[in-house]
Amino acid sequence: MTKANIIELLNNVKNGTTSVEEAVLCLKKEPYTDLGYAKLDNHRGLRQGVAEVIYGAGKTSEQVLGIVKTLVENSDSPVLITRTDEDTVNLLKSGIKDKNISYDANCNLCIVGDMPPKTGCGHILVATGGTSDIPVAEEAALTAEVLGNEVVRLYDVGVAGIHRLLDKLDDIMNASVIIAVAGMEGALASVIGGLADCPVIAVPTSVGYGANFGGLSALLAMLNSCASGVSVVNIDNGFGAGYQASMINHIKENS
Amino acid sequence: MTKANIIELLNNVKNGTTSVEEAVLCLKKEPYTDLGYAKLDNHRGLRQGVAEVIYGAGKTSEQVLGIVKTLVENSDSPVLITRTDEDTVNLLKSGIKDKNISYDANCNLCIVGDMPPKTGCGHILVATGGTSDIPVAEEAALTAEVLGNEVVRLYDVGVAGIHRLLDKLDDIMNASVIIAVAGMEGALASVIGGLADCPVIAVPTSVGYGANFGGLSALLAMLNSCASGVSVVNIDNGFGAGYQASMINHIKENS
Amino acid sequence: MTKANIIELLNNVKNGTTSVEEAVLCLKKEPYTDLGYAKLDNHRGLRQGVAEVIYGAGKTSEQVLGIVKTLVENSDSPVLITRTDEDTVNLLKSGIKDKNISYDANCNLCIVGDMPPKTGCGHILVATGGTSDIPVAEEAALTAEVLGNEVVRLYDVGVAGIHRLLDKLDDIMNASVIIAVAGMEGALASVIGGLADCPVIAVPTSVGYGANFGGLSALLAMLNSCASGVSVVNIDNGFGAGYQASMINHIKENS
Amino acid sequence: MTKANIIELLNNVKNGTTSVEEAVLCLKKEPYTDLGYAKLDNHRGLRQGVAEVIYGAGKTSEQVLGIVKTLVENSDSPVLITRTDEDTVNLLKSGIKDKNISYDANCNLCIVGDMPPKTGCGHILVATGGTSDIPVAEEAALTAEVLGNEVVRLYDVGVAGIHRLLDKLDDIMNASVIIAVAGMEGALASVIGGLADCPVIAVPTSVGYGANFGGLSALLAMLNSCASGVSVVNIDNGFGAGYQASMINHIKENS
Amino acid sequence: MTKANIIELLNNVKNGTTSVEEAVLCLKKEPYTDLGYAKLDNHRGLRQGVAEVIYGAGKTSEQVLGIVKTLVENSDSPVLITRTDEDTVNLLKSGIKDKNISYDANCNLCIVGDMPPKTGCGHILVATGGTSDIPVAEEAALTAEVLGNEVVRLYDVGVAGIHRLLDKLDDIMNASVIIAVAGMEGALASVIGGLADCPVIAVPTSVGYGANFGGLSALLAMLNSCASGVSVVNIDNGFGAGYQASMINHIKENS
Amino acid sequence: MTKANIIELLNNVKNGTTSVEEAVLCLKKEPYTDLGYAKLDNHRGLRQGVAEVIYGAGKTSEQVLGIVKTLVENSDSPVLITRTDEDTVNLLKSGIKDKNISYDANCNLCIVGDMPPKTGCGHILVATGGTSDIPVAEEAALTAEVLGNEVVRLYDVGVAGIHRLLDKLDDIMNASVIIAVAGMEGALASVIGGLADCPVIAVPTSVGYGANFGGLSALLAMLNSCASGVSVVNIDNGFGAGYQASMINHIKENS
Amino acid sequence: MTKANIIELLNNVKNGTTSVEEAVLCLKKEPYTDLGYAKLDNHRGLRQGVAEVIYGAGKTSEQVLGIVKTLVENSDSPVLITRTDEDTVNLLKSGIKDKNISYDANCNLCIVGDMPPKTGCGHILVATGGTSDIPVAEEAALTAEVLGNEVVRLYDVGVAGIHRLLDKLDDIMNASVIIAVAGMEGALASVIGGLADCPVIAVPTSVGYGANFGGLSALLAMLNSCASGVSVVNIDNGFGAGYQASMINHIKENS
Amino acid sequence: MTKANIIELLNNVKNGTTSVEEAVLCLKKEPYTDLGYAKLDNHRGLRQGVAEVIYGAGKTSEQVLGIVKTLVENSDSPVLITRTDEDTVNLLKSGIKDKNISYDANCNLCIVGDMPPKTGCGHILVATGGTSDIPVAEEAALTAEVLGNEVVRLYDVGVAGIHRLLDKLDDIMNASVIIAVAGMEGALASVIGGLADCPVIAVPTSVGYGANFGGLSALLAMLNSCASGVSVVNIDNGFGAGYQASMINHIKENS
Repeated sequence: MTKANIIELLNNVKNGTTSVEEAVLCLKKEPYTDLGYAKLDNHRGLRQGVAEVIYGAGKTSEQVLGIVKTLVENSDSPVLITRTDEDTVNLLKSGIKDKNISYDANCNLCIVGDMPPKTGCGHILVATGGTSDIPVAEEAALTAEVLGNEVVRLYDVGVAGIHRLLDKLDDIMNASVIIAVAGMEGALASVIGGLADCPVIAVPTSVGYGANFGGLSALLAMLNSCASGVSVVNIDNGFGAGYQASMINHIKENS
Repeated sequence: MTKANIIELLNNVKNGTTSVEEAVLCLKKEPYTDLGYAKLDNHRGLRQGVAEVIYGAGKTSEQVLGIVKTLVENSDSPVLITRTDEDTVNLLKSGIKDKNISYDANCNLCIVGDMPPKTGCGHILVATGGTSDIPVAEEAALTAEVLGNEVVRLYDVGVAGIHRLLDKLDDIMNASVIIAVAGMEGALASVIGGLADCPVIAVPTSVGYGANFGGLSALLAMLNSCASGVSVVNIDNGFGAGYQASMINHIKENS
Repeated sequence: MTKANIIELLNNVKNGTTSVEEAVLCLKKEPYTDLGYAKLDNHRGLRQGVAEVIYGAGKTSEQVLGIVKTLVENSDSPVLITRTDEDTVNLLKSGIKDKNISYDANCNLCIVGDMPPKTGCGHILVATGGTSDIPVAEEAALTAEVLGNEVVRLYDVGVAGIHRLLDKLDDIMNASVIIAVAGMEGALASVIGGLADCPVIAVPTSVGYGANFGGLSALLAMLNSCASGVSVVNIDNGFGAGYQASMINHIKENS
Repeated sequence: MTKANIIELLNNVKNGTTSVEEAVLCLKKEPYTDLGYAKLDNHRGLRQGVAEVIYGAGKTSEQVLGIVKTLVENSDSPVLITRTDEDTVNLLKSGIKDKNISYDANCNLCIVGDMPPKTGCGHILVATGGTSDIPVAEEAALTAEVLGNEVVRLYDVGVAGIHRLLDKLDDIMNASVIIAVAGMEGALASVIGGLADCPVIAVPTSVGYGANFGGLSALLAMLNSCASGVSVVNIDNGFGAGYQASMINHIKENS
Repeated sequence: MTKANIIELLNNVKNGTTSVEEAVLCLKKEPYTDLGYAKLDNHRGLRQGVAEVIYGAGKTSEQVLGIVKTLVENSDSPVLITRTDEDTVNLLKSGIKDKNISYDANCNLCIVGDMPPKTGCGHILVATGGTSDIPVAEEAALTAEVLGNEVVRLYDVGVAGIHRLLDKLDDIMNASVIIAVAGMEGALASVIGGLADCPVIAVPTSVGYGANFGGLSALLAMLNSCASGVSVVNIDNGFGAGYQASMINHIKENS
Repeated sequence: MTKANIIELLNNVKNGTTSVEEAVLCLKKEPYTDLGYAKLDNHRGLRQGVAEVIYGAGKTSEQVLGIVKTLVENSDSPVLITRTDEDTVNLLKSGIKDKNISYDANCNLCIVGDMPPKTGCGHILVATGGTSDIPVAEEAALTAEVLGNEVVRLYDVGVAGIHRLLDKLDDIMNASVIIAVAGMEGALASVIGGLADCPVIAVPTSVGYGANFGGLSALLAMLNSCASGVSVVNIDNGFGAGYQASMINHIKENS
Repeated sequence: MTKANIIELLNNVKNGTTSVEEAVLCLKKEPYTDLGYAKLDNHRGLRQGVAEVIYGAGKTSEQVLGIVKTLVENSDSPVLITRTDEDTVNLLKSGIKDKNISYDANCNLCIVGDMPPKTGCGHILVATGGTSDIPVAEEAALTAEVLGNEVVRLYDVGVAGIHRLLDKLDDIMNASVIIAVAGMEGALASVIGGLADCPVIAVPTSVGYGANFGGLSALLAMLNSCASGVSVVNIDNGFGAGYQASMINHIKENS
Repeated sequence: MTKANIIELLNNVKNGTTSVEEAVLCLKKEPYTDLGYAKLDNHRGLRQGVAEVIYGAGKTSEQVLGIVKTLVENSDSPVLITRTDEDTVNLLKSGIKDKNISYDANCNLCIVGDMPPKTGCGHILVATGGTSDIPVAEEAALTAEVLGNEVVRLYDVGVAGIHRLLDKLDDIMNASVIIAVAGMEGALASVIGGLADCPVIAVPTSVGYGANFGGLSALLAMLNSCASGVSVVNIDNGFGAGYQASMINHIKENS
């Protein structure tokens, strides 16, 4: 059942040919595979445009392998595993022979399958305040790439040397979506938000010390941004930012 | 200087015909009007696609009138004043005779000028968990409308009666962007985020009592949403959500 | 002295045959064994219907063994040791020869003695939002089982894929008590609370990262649940939830 | 459609005569009335055993009247309105002539309709630490009574004068469920939890000052209770405690 | 006893002509006037270079008058009263006839006596992020002026329109000390700190809403500033910033 | 210079024979030994009745040895070292040959010198809620003993089994001072405070998990105790409680 | 039954002539009067040495009058009502004719009956950091006086002018107990704690602004005092400090 | 381009010979070196008077070496690396042969190049409350020294033994700037702030335990200091304090 089918179905609902209840029934047939310890959502690709993403933390290597195997049997899309580790990746490599498996140890992110072609209406800019924010930024950038986006990276442009940022004004003004990754006082999001005319997704990082309180200072600052058009994801949640940025960048295809 | 001029200019920067420094100079000529107590940004319409928005709280009625007057002299766009009050609106009505001035006392939002035509690639869905979240939702909805978006409202569909939400599945699946407004435990954002395949902007509200701590419970819940594709704005910040939703909904025109 | 004796005694208090003071005296005879480092409450089985539970954290293996030995000499009920470890279990196995000793390394819970028969007026449903919440859920489930309850497990039914939960509607509607275990935004408790017509005990877990703050986000969300009939125990406190669920499920026998 | 019908339906699901999807359809017919600002859940009585409860705070008097009217047309059950005020009650009295309407100004709780007969397997004990906790306790007690429970009140038995509590040992040991309402250090829940052999629902109150932080001290204390069998509802949430206590007290009828 | 006397005395301590104990005795003669409810420090002018400052909040009008009278009898320096009100100022005006008394109702600050001549090695720049921060900024600016400093004001230059700030680069680079006053995300301090080569004193304000938590967001952001050379005073503490800025600006005279 | 000398001196100050300044001089002669990294207060024994106590955490073994050596040369009183470790104790044993050195590894407390005779007007009762609170309680008890107090220990009498505490009513009513040590909900302090007629010093411990937040729950509960006569020291600060309890128990000698 | 009787009784328990249970019975006869909304503890005078204290906040004037009447009928001791108001005092004056009734509007404290003679082993010193802390200090001082203590007041001796405090060294060194009342950074407790050789009870006040957080800054500072011998009561809890100080000052009589 | 050039340029801006835009162009030529993972600011020496400081935490040894090499090629100023470790220092020593490289393992601070001559208008006093605060104090002191300041150290002068501090009154009164480093209750800043007539920069440290919350107690206390002239940097941020102190001490040269 393709996206087009779904849209047709829902249009039928709108014009009364199909009842809501019938539509729900259609949508719910065979919706997931039950592995016991996890229930895999086979329709999610339809419903949200990408394959299941696996949050690796708190799962054993064996559980991850089991989930990935089921997913690659049901779909050709690449599979993204966040917060995983070298041991799990090695197990995947020995268990799944016919897929490319790459791993970025910097941000603990593994990709099973090939990178898709670049689609989307523009490019996504990923900016960081400092060098230490790069792992979180890479989680965002790789997530966006595996979901079919062109990504431009702009690292170490924090507000304590504002001319480094101003020098890249054209990168900022040309982006479709911007992901602003910063720890400490998180001011990067506000400054970029004031310069850009596209949505800015702010990612607070836990980089810093003292009254940083594990990223709380950047989180609060970003939530209180005086610039319009800024929204925020959880501390260190590069994945979430990359995922939503991709949704925004693909909005033309979805509606 | 129109948006097209800016893009041409930046392209010249890219291909080397114009230096970055020259471009900055072009962009910075006559950039604002200085009223003493406020510096109005005349180019913001260019840079961000809409006229200056006035955050009414903490400004005297006279200051608001002075700012609005300057803005309507420089642009035909409608002016949005958030967190204002009846007295200020009355002063605006007596000081600005040739503009429509409407006021929603429910969410303390005033609009000077006419509503623009609906543009954007789809519609924005604004959903609330309960009846008490409606004022914040209206701030978001009216903001989106004044920025040229079609808005669909879906109120009182909180997760304690999940079938009320499921019954509106087609509204959720047809939206370009969804704004999920909820207080208490803020679960609405996660449930909608799991059903939708478009970006969800979550707005925590300060509705509730006890260990709600002025909206903190909903804020934390939304930041920790297990659904991908959800980002969050500040507590009760309907304006911020409406503004970013409009940016997303107009992304085709910008890039 | 059995429960029936106690009730008779208290009835005598009510009708005046026995004074309150005499009753207190009766109840307080030989009430505990003093081991020096711990005072074991021999009457607790009477007073609360089960044997003493040992909170293993912060006690040495020798102290645990000492306590268990005293308990098994005074009662035939199984003994539950929470938050213990493999070393302690091995010491117990070598020190107590005539009892079955089982250990679940996943949730660090040890049971000395045999599982009792299933009593109680119905079954207890234990549900989790994700795979990572399973250890806390198992602490709850095993606790309930050792206290004589039938337990149904329903794992990985978090709200980001709400149809997985809806598919199990009959499990939810048939339960006597439900234990909802979830980290992150803790929305599972509200959604289940809205669907069920039995008491729901919510257990926030420390699963998550960033602004999760060790389970605080789920705790606050659950306390602020918009569904009626939900109460909350401490973060990761599977034992407490299992214990209270058992009390509720056995309410017919107690009053 | 009665409870018995629902159970039959679900049994058919279990034994395969009816599919899950068909059952969902049955359950979802005509499920709510849409008032625009609120969606009233007509089936909730079936699903949860009582009529809709109205959380009065944040709703206008007119909205409350509209909701109550719709509810009393669909059901004979009494309607409970929490956190309301005298003005709303007067409007209700002039708008609904054929129902008893009572109001407890102490805890801002209004009941439309007659008190139901006492059902349930035992009585519910409501205890408070001090005199100032009484309004929250009354919200719990009246909620339990309107849901068909016998309630015993035991006020001002705080732990600083422990013999006042011990003197009422028989009330504690005879209860089916206990609601322990206390502010300040919230120790009442632990002491009662240690004495009772039935479930204890703890309600922290915002009574106190200084480092009480609006009830946080009692909330944390109750969550960390060293007594087993204690769960907690939100600060000052007497309604939630009364509602869950009633569910527990009626458990024999439900399963 | 002048400052020169004190320095001579301490040099004598250094070279052994005077013992530490003798020096303490010299310094402690007649050190304060006891009014019962307050102990006025007559030597503070010597020790810290200015007359006693009166924190007006929490003192009655009569107490303030009593303190001011005592101070003007002992010194010719102007007296600064912070956090006071119109009633107190009127009482001062009727009780002290031979002194100029001015009052800024905007920041509740009163000055008794004449403004001193401008001394100090340069000027102090006071900048604000928005219009709403002006009252706190004026408390800082007037404090600095009454302590003999030249003050330059630069208001509404927040980072959401960074070119407004960059346009004033020469004001920033010419200052001796900068006071950066901002609410919301408090990014102004970091951006100015990165541009300036003089000390920056950051003042968080309680301006904002939602997860601003009364100025906490700006406070944490400023403490975590990625720019070197920034220190922070308490939320809304314009006085403290103006006072320390004056100390820094007069450092040449002190050592 | 003995205590008697000091009192005589201060009386002379009172009756005018000696000026305050002269008295300060007398008191300040040779007041400390400067070791570079630490300044040892030789008069503290006079001023506070005991020898210097060494807070061992954050000091190297060599620094501790250096400090102890200086102290034992200046006084015969025992020296107490808190938060130390086995390595430091071994170094002390090899460096100081003529003193008894004992070490309690349970609470990391070392005593150099002999236990003094029991003085004080009564005995100090040290009670704990559970077995896990014993290390903190021992820090309090040993501190009190080394300062010359008789100590009675009453461990594992937490409020979840209130009859264990009531059984020791005479210990509670006979004490001069009580130290109540408890984690979790910290209710022990309130219950003892309501039973006793002597001062109670409450020590919150970091024992517990979940929303315990490192002892915050017990701390807040104890500060909000509904019993009069209870004061609180820092989390896990057994030393502070033992020290103040000794001061109270020796009050007859001091005034 | 006097204190002597109690001690005799408990000694009999110790030597075996009387069992614990018999003693409990003796102590529990007729222990309180039940007013419905409050349970008055008639034995508290015996158990804790003073009459019941009434916490006025949250009680109606009529409830306070009812409680006071019952108390004065059972005892000749003065009755202390804290946190009350002028209306309640007027009602007391018209309802109780034969007792002196005084009221301090500054700290909202009312005393019914005559001040007792000064007993206790020494005097209590009450010190404040500033003028604004005086109301809390007076609550402490009057509480101590009504419990039979001599009180010395030492106000406005905060650490920013340390010589004002040093000048009163003899007051500090002569006290039996010291109550140190301070807001803001609460440093007064540490400085006094370092100078005194008697117990210091610290009372944080909510005086201050900004990051004071309603007294939290002073509370944390006092809990973390580097001086030994300091314990802390709740924010603004002058009564608690005065009560415990009296207990300490009367310790000779109790043991 | 020297400072004098910059001032001339800006004066030309002021008198109109040069436009703001031209000045910005001049200042921005060749402003940084891009290393990919970091952007080095070559002009910072001009703009802020010292070479780039490297925050070592979160950078690999290779990245630090790369940055240092680039910096020493562009300038003769010493380079300061904070929060680094022995491995990185060894790599620096093998990679940079012609520079002095010193390392203080106590505070993890490395200096590449020679200490500059002492300039500045006076000396900087660095004081600590206790022995455990010394590492943070050394970070401040060494930072100040590498920036060309004379530093006086005054360690272990905490307020619990106030005479140790008073004994050094001349050091305090002679300083240009004071850095007060303290953990626990942070009272040192207030006491020194009350004695000194120069700016005091307070550094809270994370030294302490219990309700210290990682330095929060000292941070809040210092922000709420009752002494004027005190500002605060982040917890444990010795570098920030040393840096700003140097700016203040060199103010004569800058303006």
